[in-house]
Amino acid sequence: MAGRPEGGAKEREVGADGKERNATANGSLSLGTPASPGYAEGPLFRLDRPQATYSPKGSADAEKAALDQAMAAATDGLTELAAQMSGEAADMLEFQIAMLSDDALAAPALEAIAAGEPADMAWRMALDAEIAGYEASEDDYFRARAADLADIRDRVLRALSGEGEQAAPAGAILVGEDITPTRFLQTDWSAGGGIALAAGSAASHVAMLARGRGVPMAVGFGESLAGAGGFGLLDAEHGRLIVDADPVAAAAFHEAAAGFRRGREVARTYLAQPAATRDGTSIRVQVNIADPSDVETVDIGHCDGVGLMRTEFLFGKVLPDEGTQLAAYRKVLEWAGGKPVTIRTVDAGGDKPVPGFTVEETNPFLGLRGIRLSLARPEIFRVQIRALLRAAVHGNLKVMVPMVAVPGEYAAAAALFSDEAAMLAKAGVPHKMPPLGIMVEVPSVAVAPELFSDAAFFSIGSNDLTQYVLAAARDNGRVAALHDVGHPAVLRLIGNVAAFAREQKIPVSLCGDAGGDPAAIPALLAAGLRDLSAVPAQLAAAKAAIAAVEL
Amino acid sequence: MAGRPEGGAKEREVGADGKERNATANGSLSLGTPASPGYAEGPLFRLDRPQATYSPKGSADAEKAALDQAMAAATDGLTELAAQMSGEAADMLEFQIAMLSDDALAAPALEAIAAGEPADMAWRMALDAEIAGYEASEDDYFRARAADLADIRDRVLRALSGEGEQAAPAGAILVGEDITPTRFLQTDWSAGGGIALAAGSAASHVAMLARGRGVPMAVGFGESLAGAGGFGLLDAEHGRLIVDADPVAAAAFHEAAAGFRRGREVARTYLAQPAATRDGTSIRVQVNIADPSDVETVDIGHCDGVGLMRTEFLFGKVLPDEGTQLAAYRKVLEWAGGKPVTIRTVDAGGDKPVPGFTVEETNPFLGLRGIRLSLARPEIFRVQIRALLRAAVHGNLKVMVPMVAVPGEYAAAAALFSDEAAMLAKAGVPHKMPPLGIMVEVPSVAVAPELFSDAAFFSIGSNDLTQYVLAAARDNGRVAALHDVGHPAVLRLIGNVAAFAREQKIPVSLCGDAGGDPAAIPALLAAGLRDLSAVPAQLAAAKAAIAAVEL
Repeated sequence: MAGRPEGGAKEREVGADGKERNATANGSLSLGTPASPGYAEGPLFRLDRPQATYSPKGSADAEKAALDQAMAAATDGLTELAAQMSGEAADMLEFQIAMLSDDALAAPALEAIAAGEPADMAWRMALDAEIAGYEASEDDYFRARAADLADIRDRVLRALSGEGEQAAPAGAILVGEDITPTRFLQTDWSAGGGIALAAGSAASHVAMLARGRGVPMAVGFGESLAGAGGFGLLDAEHGRLIVDADPVAAAAFHEAAAGFRRGREVARTYLAQPAATRDGTSIRVQVNIADPSDVETVDIGHCDGVGLMRTEFLFGKVLPDEGTQLAAYRKVLEWAGGKPVTIRTVDAGGDKPVPGFTVEETNPFLGLRGIRLSLARPEIFRVQIRALLRAAVHGNLKVMVPMVAVPGEYAAAAALFSDEAAMLAKAGVPHKMPPLGIMVEVPSVAVAPELFSDAAFFSIGSNDLTQYVLAAARDNGRVAALHDVGHPAVLRLIGNVAAFAREQKIPVSLCGDAGGDPAAIPALLAAGLRDLSAVPAQLAAAKAAIAAVEL
Repeated sequence: MAGRPEGGAKEREVGADGKERNATANGSLSLGTPASPGYAEGPLFRLDRPQATYSPKGSADAEKAALDQAMAAATDGLTELAAQMSGEAADMLEFQIAMLSDDALAAPALEAIAAGEPADMAWRMALDAEIAGYEASEDDYFRARAADLADIRDRVLRALSGEGEQAAPAGAILVGEDITPTRFLQTDWSAGGGIALAAGSAASHVAMLARGRGVPMAVGFGESLAGAGGFGLLDAEHGRLIVDADPVAAAAFHEAAAGFRRGREVARTYLAQPAATRDGTSIRVQVNIADPSDVETVDIGHCDGVGLMRTEFLFGKVLPDEGTQLAAYRKVLEWAGGKPVTIRTVDAGGDKPVPGFTVEETNPFLGLRGIRLSLARPEIFRVQIRALLRAAVHGNLKVMVPMVAVPGEYAAAAALFSDEAAMLAKAGVPHKMPPLGIMVEVPSVAVAPELFSDAAFFSIGSNDLTQYVLAAARDNGRVAALHDVGHPAVLRLIGNVAAFAREQKIPVSLCGDAGGDPAAIPALLAAGLRDLSAVPAQLAAAKAAIAAVEL
């Protein structure tokens, strides 16, 4: 039901089981996997690889100089683009800039140039080899990063040949093997349009960007897209592309698209209203934010506060100092006015490695992550604690601790908070002790919540809870069918936590992806939850789904 | 309480918290970590690195020939030793032989020889670099394999210099940085003796061998062992080594050692008796076997059957054919007479990669393993199913399926068994349908066992269940303190499964390490279990622990 990009698993099975072509009489139907839901129609525009018309320079030194210059130009172009972006898009561009500045990336190309290859051939071969390595990875994350490398490859090739990128006509459906993130960012989506890819991944940067911007996108069409051209109807809700549809198919498409739009509009009417079920039970709906810039897209009047503010964005190449953290926390607290902002202490480790902080492990999801890592590195944790204590005077702060498995971890974290508060008091620094709660994501807590009744509140992390209860990693496509928050065991544990919390008057909410998933919401409310937190893009749909529930 | 080598965690904390020296007045006390429990006293024998007196041969070709010859001699020596061993020891030697035959191991040495180094220096530097890489690994498994590489290094160095290995005097306590597995195997332990190591690992091959043979061993003494000599008293139950003890310390040691021996003897008196609690409740105690040769150390009269026969041993470098599997299963069934033998279908993946079968994953414990992998590769699973169906006519076979998370997996496995049985019937091949049960190790099953009431029996896998409930990998030392089968949430889930099974009259047992751990057994019986399965070495201690329980 959740723990996957919107609309993923079920339709993926359709694609896998029944991939077909020419299923309609006059049109051609291709089946893929939804990556960003929605409907688009327009001329197909092929995303072909640039045909670099590069003139060799005649000497290895000149070839090296040409490559250096092209890489510098590519870096400049990316830096300029990054300056216009924020949040996810800016992160992605900075990732590309960082890869371009890694000497290891160009090393094979420089060797080939030294051996007499022209710069364009050398660069293409080096990057193609690197991309092949990423594409062959068993890891969804690395496969998804192959598109970033292809982007870098093509950007440098274009700089070498002095060639620009052909812009797609407004409203076109972009089709091809894959799409580069910068191509996505440079396309004007204001007139509609969509994306249909032969390869691609619902976990890619572009798919995340497309979901954020509401651009319909489907991936994994395979060979059925080869050479496709003409006028396309893209149903990215179900992963279907019809080319040159007959009138019957076109009418069906328009009806489905209109239904989808009506659903979105209906949802939007709920956005500004307080959430309530059909029978009038009030439900709190908060937002999850991953980066302070996320609040720019949210009207605080539309939500009941921040149910989860992640802090991993602060832990990049260098560990953040106290002032940097304080400023980020304060920004969101002030934006929220008096509404609660629940900040999670850093959940590094797992799928979020941080240089100089996390360790390499064979099973990082079952390793030193979250509070385990913070307690193992108290000198780093104390900096975050001080920043949180100082931020607390600027709003309605709540703090929660991730990955608690045993009561001693909560007690140790609470002791560090008290300790730092005492030191700030001694030094005369303004601060305040926020309520300290825990994430409920390790099954031990959900099975025996009574061991954790000292916590000021519970926040259920449905993604991690589901992956542990079903022993199915949330980022592993091979076990995606098992990763189901709707499994009776997961819902029973959620119900167990909700019942205990109600009895003990401990506030309880849920901040995993399921909290914003219309398919999961009825079961979550039935399990006793009355407080959900969803990403901003899901806020309207979550409120609409709540309004349809009869308790 | 379990999920660790006997006597590990608690004492390790002592070592880590209070490592000290010269704690007694006249003797010197060192603190380490138990790796194989027991008491030993004798002269210290230093395991120093061989001082190869190698004469350089003068040319790169001659050096290369000398190294080739020494490697061949080392391989011959290992092959000869392997022929005398079975089970774990033979596997370990075959692992070393395989490493020696890997061209990549010698490649850096051959490069150094080509650059003018003599063979001994080249080999030592190449292997030391490789060993350093293994020792620096974050992974316990790889760190433990460093000792195997050191063994290979020294064996080849001795072959180069024509030097033999000095044998330890009978009954000595071997001390040093680490011990090679072959040194362990070549030592005569019949007169007692023990092992105390500055480095080492309780997860090493040698530690496993020592526990199997009952040789006292402790590791991790660190610098306190430097230069130690004299007469030693090794208390490997608590990880203590006293050198040149004063009479008071020696008397205390002898008392503790006598107590330990009495405990073992008392346990041994329980071995031949049916297990029962102090108040007379009968408990079934079965054995876990990992390899058919394990049964050679067990009197079938001392146990109630085989609670877990693993089949991963069959899945080595090549996938096993039907006849090979049938022969292995039949051997154990015939050994067991009419007693039940519960064979688990292959649990590859996780920490048990199999070339050509398993896939690489970022979190293999949460990935495509056990029944998931078997169902994904039905052509491989069907071979095992046929072998099991045919073996069933030779004894009292039960079959269980690992890593079931959802009911559909059990149904799919059962359907394959029916399908293959029908085909064998059609072909006129003798076969029988065994009862088909499931492992209870994914939390979803323990939380909602009623979804799995079609299963013929339940067998709780406490190691995996614990690692998922606490989100703490069972092989990661950094989270070892969290991996506790005694956590109330784990015991509650075990109790939940036991209660449901009793109510539905579904047989239920437990076959994880906790089943043989005297510290865990009282809680398991209190949770309602009446059927445990333990490794052969723990059988007596388990029965003794059961006899002490008052229900």
